[in-house]
Amino acid sequence: MAEEASQPAPFARVALLGIGYMGGSLALALRASGLAKTVVGYDKDPGAATLALERGIIQLAASSPAEAVRSADLVILAAPVRALEGLAKTIAGSLTPGALLFDIGSVKGPVADAVRRAVGESHFVPCHPLAGAEKSGVGAAVADLYHGRPCVLCPFPTTDLGAIDRVEALWRAVGSHPIRVPIEEHDGLVAALSHLPHAVAFALARAAEQDGTRLRNVLPGGTLTSSLRDTTRVAASSPEVWRDIFLMNGPNVLPLIDRFVGELQTLRAQIEANDAAGLHDWLTTARTARRRLFED
Amino acid sequence: MAEEASQPAPFARVALLGIGYMGGSLALALRASGLAKTVVGYDKDPGAATLALERGIIQLAASSPAEAVRSADLVILAAPVRALEGLAKTIAGSLTPGALLFDIGSVKGPVADAVRRAVGESHFVPCHPLAGAEKSGVGAAVADLYHGRPCVLCPFPTTDLGAIDRVEALWRAVGSHPIRVPIEEHDGLVAALSHLPHAVAFALARAAEQDGTRLRNVLPGGTLTSSLRDTTRVAASSPEVWRDIFLMNGPNVLPLIDRFVGELQTLRAQIEANDAAGLHDWLTTARTARRRLFED
Repeated sequence: MAEEASQPAPFARVALLGIGYMGGSLALALRASGLAKTVVGYDKDPGAATLALERGIIQLAASSPAEAVRSADLVILAAPVRALEGLAKTIAGSLTPGALLFDIGSVKGPVADAVRRAVGESHFVPCHPLAGAEKSGVGAAVADLYHGRPCVLCPFPTTDLGAIDRVEALWRAVGSHPIRVPIEEHDGLVAALSHLPHAVAFALARAAEQDGTRLRNVLPGGTLTSSLRDTTRVAASSPEVWRDIFLMNGPNVLPLIDRFVGELQTLRAQIEANDAAGLHDWLTTARTARRRLFED
Repeated sequence: MAEEASQPAPFARVALLGIGYMGGSLALALRASGLAKTVVGYDKDPGAATLALERGIIQLAASSPAEAVRSADLVILAAPVRALEGLAKTIAGSLTPGALLFDIGSVKGPVADAVRRAVGESHFVPCHPLAGAEKSGVGAAVADLYHGRPCVLCPFPTTDLGAIDRVEALWRAVGSHPIRVPIEEHDGLVAALSHLPHAVAFALARAAEQDGTRLRNVLPGGTLTSSLRDTTRVAASSPEVWRDIFLMNGPNVLPLIDRFVGELQTLRAQIEANDAAGLHDWLTTARTARRRLFED
């Protein structure tokens, strides 16, 4: 009975603004868990809406964001983060009073502030599900994307407590684990957790591909080393999504890139100086760091 | 019958010099496939030999490399690459005439040359199995480590053809796919395939761990982002093994580190200049590069 009690009342009409891999997967999960009766979708790319209709991810396609949110009791902002402020301004006058609203963007500080200013903060709960996102496009959407993954919630001090509870219950209903993080800490945390690893993966894919023809002549794609495969996995992520994340979180990402390059330059100098002892210490600390991070 | 025909005759006495994760796993695989009757092991760390005896990975522990190779019809050099030249010199006078010999090191050029000068080249077949190696120590050895993975063979032009065939058959018998690569190409290829990704993973683990306490306070180890988990996975690898690889393959690794840092600095400059169009192009090329590398 405890679990049933935490299941929120279903939403009659969910507006999904931005129909991609992350938002499409959430729509599927909400329908599968019985939490959404009808999902109304809008995407600036009409092809995404058409595909989502065909796949049953949305039940209605709207011709504008404002039309999508009309009569919706839940609004999900699922567009790339640099588009969220414009979206919020566009829909502000059409929101149903009391409608719940959250975004699922990877940057919070400036974006969440802008959305809050546009829509009012009391029923807006900034969310950031930490789920694998190296895929892109609604064609890749799956209902279990959020299952077993954390979702970071960053409510403002003045956000309605009932709204926070309903959003947490929603994430639990799709199998995610909600975690509350003060909004001012979010962007620094994810810069280290996610944005720096993505920057590294993108740069590594570009650097390695310059030998790509030579590599593939020796080893077919399926058998390339697992070290290169794993370190570059997230380089398959959406360029639109990551352009926006890097641009919106520059103040946190740039110092981390510098810190990382500094580490790599230390390694480089030790190799060049043939410094076996220093190199051994440096690598041992790296292994300890990896173990501490994941304790596995 | 074709498969049976490719199974080489069993080795009566296999000498394993260096009893770690890679060599221990190979010994287990050779015994499981019936290819090795007795494995005689030597490691400069007596604890490794004791553990290998307890686990049945070796049947005899030798007190010196020379003692280990006496009467052996197969000698496997499985120590870190900087130790191979010294090992080869130590055993040269004790090798049985006609005994097959191969190493499993990740660097070939200077190492293989030194071993060849010490032991003579006709029955020495440089090998490099490309198998996941972020674990270390004989305690982690498993019989199926090489299953489904490629093994690069770099015979010299004058290597005995029968010796090459026997070594290829041995790798096939443990489930690996042998691939021949000209020895002068090996070190450049693996620098891009494996050594650069490892350098990046080690540096990233060190950089991210500086925020480690803060990160773990928010997200327990098991739930940290998969992007950080995958990009740093191989940072758990052996410091001894990787110290030697980086030092022995510096001429190939250093220019790749520079190329990679150049890519990352391009990203950094685009973020700082708020260059949305340039960033989008750069990220799109990175995604294409990842797809070309792995075609999946």
